[in-house]
Amino acid sequence: MENEHLNNSTIFPLGQKVEANFIGDAYLQMVFTDPTPLNAPIGNVTFTPGARNNWHSHKIGQVLLVTGGEGWYQQEGKSAQLLKTGDVVNIPPNIKHWHGATKDSWFVQLAISPGETEWLEPVDDELYNKL
Amino acid sequence: MENEHLNNSTIFPLGQKVEANFIGDAYLQMVFTDPTPLNAPIGNVTFTPGARNNWHSHKIGQVLLVTGGEGWYQQEGKSAQLLKTGDVVNIPPNIKHWHGATKDSWFVQLAISPGETEWLEPVDDELYNKL
Repeated sequence: MENEHLNNSTIFPLGQKVEANFIGDAYLQMVFTDPTPLNAPIGNVTFTPGARNNWHSHKIGQVLLVTGGEGWYQQEGKSAQLLKTGDVVNIPPNIKHWHGATKDSWFVQLAISPGETEWLEPVDDELYNKL
Repeated sequence: MENEHLNNSTIFPLGQKVEANFIGDAYLQMVFTDPTPLNAPIGNVTFTPGARNNWHSHKIGQVLLVTGGEGWYQQEGKSAQLLKTGDVVNIPPNIKHWHGATKDSWFVQLAISPGETEWLEPVDDELYNKL
């Protein structure tokens, strides 16, 4: 069933399985990496249900464009926000946060990332399972 | 039938009808306009079948991410390229070009536009109908 949903959501290629800094199965395909005219590369990130990235922060910030499914975005010390298809998130620089799928849904986003990322600890099951 | 297709393609809001520099019905919804962290705003552009923008050029360039349907991209003096869902186009600065839907398909793209646009003459039916 999960794969059926992924097939329905695919606009950009699924890409390769992400091997580090994530819990669960997630996939990354870079869709734009040219040095001009943007100040940022663009990646297509697909999270299977329950998958999420570790806590992390971006030195310049990041913009997420949600193209499919449902997921979570949470800044440290704040409530998690439910994200749906068509949502856009402006993640400020140097804010500890994570994002990922809900338990029951795949989640697909374009991530536009102008600077470096600092990776931190995983989002543990105790926090995630309460959402 | 056209509206049915539009409904199927909508990830980001359709927005308002574009009133200048286009032939046919096209719609624009800005989805990201914050001054940071990107060097460019992002617009969701939806062309109905047969709609296209006028010839134009971008002072810094533009990136198109095709999220639905089929369309054309043509640089002056070159053959038109057929674009499909998932295609990404890096439009160089100061290159005269146009983009739009095919005759038979809606066409939806995210346009990431870091600089000003210079608008020129319409793409006439003689050129478009030969595609």
